[in-house]
Amino acid sequence: MENLPAIATLILSCANQKGLVARISQFIFQRGGDIIDLDEHVDKDEQMFFIRIEWDMKGFAVTADKFENEFKPLADEINAVWEVKYSSQKSQLVIFVSKYDHCLQEILWRHSYGELNADIALIISNHETLRHITERYKIPFYFFPITKENKHEQESKELALLEEHKIDTIVLARYMQILSPQFLEKYPNNIINIHHSFLPAFIGADPYAKAYERGVKLIGATSHYVTEELDEGPIIEQDVIRITHKDSLKDLIRKGRDLERMVLAHALDLHVNNRVLQYGKKTIIFS
Amino acid sequence: MENLPAIATLILSCANQKGLVARISQFIFQRGGDIIDLDEHVDKDEQMFFIRIEWDMKGFAVTADKFENEFKPLADEINAVWEVKYSSQKSQLVIFVSKYDHCLQEILWRHSYGELNADIALIISNHETLRHITERYKIPFYFFPITKENKHEQESKELALLEEHKIDTIVLARYMQILSPQFLEKYPNNIINIHHSFLPAFIGADPYAKAYERGVKLIGATSHYVTEELDEGPIIEQDVIRITHKDSLKDLIRKGRDLERMVLAHALDLHVNNRVLQYGKKTIIFS
Amino acid sequence: MENLPAIATLILSCANQKGLVARISQFIFQRGGDIIDLDEHVDKDEQMFFIRIEWDMKGFAVTADKFENEFKPLADEINAVWEVKYSSQKSQLVIFVSKYDHCLQEILWRHSYGELNADIALIISNHETLRHITERYKIPFYFFPITKENKHEQESKELALLEEHKIDTIVLARYMQILSPQFLEKYPNNIINIHHSFLPAFIGADPYAKAYERGVKLIGATSHYVTEELDEGPIIEQDVIRITHKDSLKDLIRKGRDLERMVLAHALDLHVNNRVLQYGKKTIIFS
Amino acid sequence: MENLPAIATLILSCANQKGLVARISQFIFQRGGDIIDLDEHVDKDEQMFFIRIEWDMKGFAVTADKFENEFKPLADEINAVWEVKYSSQKSQLVIFVSKYDHCLQEILWRHSYGELNADIALIISNHETLRHITERYKIPFYFFPITKENKHEQESKELALLEEHKIDTIVLARYMQILSPQFLEKYPNNIINIHHSFLPAFIGADPYAKAYERGVKLIGATSHYVTEELDEGPIIEQDVIRITHKDSLKDLIRKGRDLERMVLAHALDLHVNNRVLQYGKKTIIFS
Repeated sequence: MENLPAIATLILSCANQKGLVARISQFIFQRGGDIIDLDEHVDKDEQMFFIRIEWDMKGFAVTADKFENEFKPLADEINAVWEVKYSSQKSQLVIFVSKYDHCLQEILWRHSYGELNADIALIISNHETLRHITERYKIPFYFFPITKENKHEQESKELALLEEHKIDTIVLARYMQILSPQFLEKYPNNIINIHHSFLPAFIGADPYAKAYERGVKLIGATSHYVTEELDEGPIIEQDVIRITHKDSLKDLIRKGRDLERMVLAHALDLHVNNRVLQYGKKTIIFS
Repeated sequence: MENLPAIATLILSCANQKGLVARISQFIFQRGGDIIDLDEHVDKDEQMFFIRIEWDMKGFAVTADKFENEFKPLADEINAVWEVKYSSQKSQLVIFVSKYDHCLQEILWRHSYGELNADIALIISNHETLRHITERYKIPFYFFPITKENKHEQESKELALLEEHKIDTIVLARYMQILSPQFLEKYPNNIINIHHSFLPAFIGADPYAKAYERGVKLIGATSHYVTEELDEGPIIEQDVIRITHKDSLKDLIRKGRDLERMVLAHALDLHVNNRVLQYGKKTIIFS
Repeated sequence: MENLPAIATLILSCANQKGLVARISQFIFQRGGDIIDLDEHVDKDEQMFFIRIEWDMKGFAVTADKFENEFKPLADEINAVWEVKYSSQKSQLVIFVSKYDHCLQEILWRHSYGELNADIALIISNHETLRHITERYKIPFYFFPITKENKHEQESKELALLEEHKIDTIVLARYMQILSPQFLEKYPNNIINIHHSFLPAFIGADPYAKAYERGVKLIGATSHYVTEELDEGPIIEQDVIRITHKDSLKDLIRKGRDLERMVLAHALDLHVNNRVLQYGKKTIIFS
Repeated sequence: MENLPAIATLILSCANQKGLVARISQFIFQRGGDIIDLDEHVDKDEQMFFIRIEWDMKGFAVTADKFENEFKPLADEINAVWEVKYSSQKSQLVIFVSKYDHCLQEILWRHSYGELNADIALIISNHETLRHITERYKIPFYFFPITKENKHEQESKELALLEEHKIDTIVLARYMQILSPQFLEKYPNNIINIHHSFLPAFIGADPYAKAYERGVKLIGATSHYVTEELDEGPIIEQDVIRITHKDSLKDLIRKGRDLERMVLAHALDLHVNNRVLQYGKKTIIFS
């Protein structure tokens, strides 16, 4: 991806009205942009308009720092919620972990391979367990043990750290703590979790044990944005694998690991490439 | 399947102890049976033994009508729950339907193709809607409208009919009535339902609407044995398909139909081929 | 689908240049069209532009019969290959069959369910075997036995029949004859076949026997447009299912039937909804 | 897996005859073995008998070193091909790599997680590229550059090294050299390769480029035993993923990496757990 000319991506939603595609594409064309990929959809029940546009910045008259001002009049007129990202300005990630390393390893490996369109700025954990892994990749590791008493204080320190590093996306890679509402409101729409079940089945703790108990024939994993309601945030990606009666609970946990890391990696990929638009309790995925 | 010599299948479960495979396979060998397929598994946590054996009846010294007496001493000694079926004695099915015909059509089509190892003895419905379909296949169709007031009486008539036709398996192919506990206890372990969700997600009514509302990325279908607790019976088969934000609720219902009929057909296939062993709230599937 | 206002869909490809989306969407907007769904992609290697647009005809100033004239100047200027379809003008299908009925049954069933956005005008077969099925659905059935000697003559009669019925799409639903080049050139890009393998593996006759012989762990089915080179036409849809060593060749054929009918049905669905754009030896699928 | 009592697994094939299951299970029972899992199948066309038995060694009268002598008379009598493995005697692996590290990383990661029932004794490569990775895991890395001239000599050195380390299984984790027939005959049935296509489609070099060119809708990966005929050895495991026209060749390569590492890891898992029986050009997979 390194030597490609920069690509801009815009995602936008607003109430539907005639002429939106024409106006937005005209806006880009008039400033010299070459639209490489465009995906638009109208939800006819809700009469909502959703669009993602990807254009080549080569020859585009508006630089990244000026785009907001330039696009604002049109966006305001159509009352749009929107976000633009540039391939030249990578997402800044923090990964929160506890003791399980499979999701972390998967993300670090993909990043080292140049697959992840983002910078992993730092790792935060409530345990020291995984420090050695992050050192190998030369990514700063911060240890914030959490107790009932110190939670508020520790989260404040974490938030200060995130601000300092200009973090825009938080990945909970099997982080075994619940973030406080105060923390969540600082990063609305930008905290991605992986839950080890096919939500909404098996919300909460120990989903594999519950799946084993129920005798399901497929187990799942779900990556979603975090909201105040546990495991109820907008779903980004889900997948399942087949299990049999020969699989013990241990086997479910082992097989589930492959699923968790793949589903989280795909969801993160969609997010950093500006392919996810949150709308109400759902997501629009431009894939 | 028509011209093959008869095949016997035995499924059996009991508390685990050493030597069970040896004793059971010896029993069959000594009577001249050629074991074509055997699948055995011990659940180490529960210390339970599960087995399915398939053998060629050609040269087997015990005829179907005498097997029970012959096998009983061994089965009693190991305190086994067991069932034997023969390819020459097909399952006798009744299919319960209401107004939707996709699951019914799938089963009838497979049956007409010789794929289903069973006889479809009759169709029962609480509506007249699908009578024309069953007439085409020359299968008797019985109309039992159900109201709060007549439910008990109608079910009694249905049960009498099932007894008369020596029905051993009941398929609820999107039958929109709940069978009474009195009905269920006449056919323990032999009533197969299709639920249009990935259970235990979206139990009860309108699962597609709930799935649409929640914004899941996969929809599912589950075939299970019916017990008194709604949608809580042992699961036989489940599967899922991917959906996107472009799919309306109508699209979910349309796409789900393909899933429902495939999942129900596979579950029924497993059941009539004696590949399902119920154990507690789960199933062992010998596939 | 019956009572919805008409929907128009345009698919178009041409050499890429800046401003194409703006110009085309402007064209529709200026005539009062409300774009419901738009999917555009530029192949950066080939510098080719591909687009599918779906708009509501309610309030659109150009009626279906006038669209070609109205759109031609723009299309010519950008040197585009394009096609427009209307939900109010259904595709006219002929289904060619031989002796296997599973693909035919699937299409007929979907059609009867209102799922298939097309009219099945007639069935043509080189055998009498399946006449009874089509009679049940009240669709005309034509028997054209094919021999080496009469092939040219019979195909001429078939073509006359297709012209008479204004057929635009030919479905080969396990039709066991090879159409002549003369026939094919009358319906370029509009003949859809189902091949019972994961192409390009197992081209030609007996793919299941070859798959069984090779010991593959998945079997596939492929739906593609028919060209002069056997099984080499542009692929529309493919899928696979898992098999095991317990599956005999007969089992592969049985399991493959489910795959064939689903893959063909999906491909046909994509085609009649104007979601397939052929480009060289490939297809662009707007799904 | 560490604290479990040892488990023995036997895989065996021979011409079918009555009583085989009884005799083999009797053999194990008489020596005090508790059969945990047994999977037997007769190929009725070939009249071949295949079995895998897993039993608990706790209380088993025959130690691993004496089993061969003890079992030989029975095995000889039924003219069986067989192999026994013990969970307490792990497979000794060598991994051959070139420059791509994704398959290697996956195996090393699973091994570090205790998921792989084997020891990775050493890594061999024809390039220095991946030395740093293996050092991180403290596994010896050997560099054997291969040219046309030195191939024979280098392979001899490699074989000496393998013998010294008592290697029983060779994994070609995207190793970009073809092993000579002389090398192959030293490790019949024990060299596992990953090919980046759905074999037999796209045999040989550059399968992703060929898949891209053909316009397939799914790409695959195949893990198989290596034989003298390129990409023609018995297949252990295959899987596929969906691609679209939006995927460039680079995207295919990127997405394919996930598939390759999963398929190779699963195949290796099956192999080291004695779940693969080679028969002719195929495999029997006891899963």
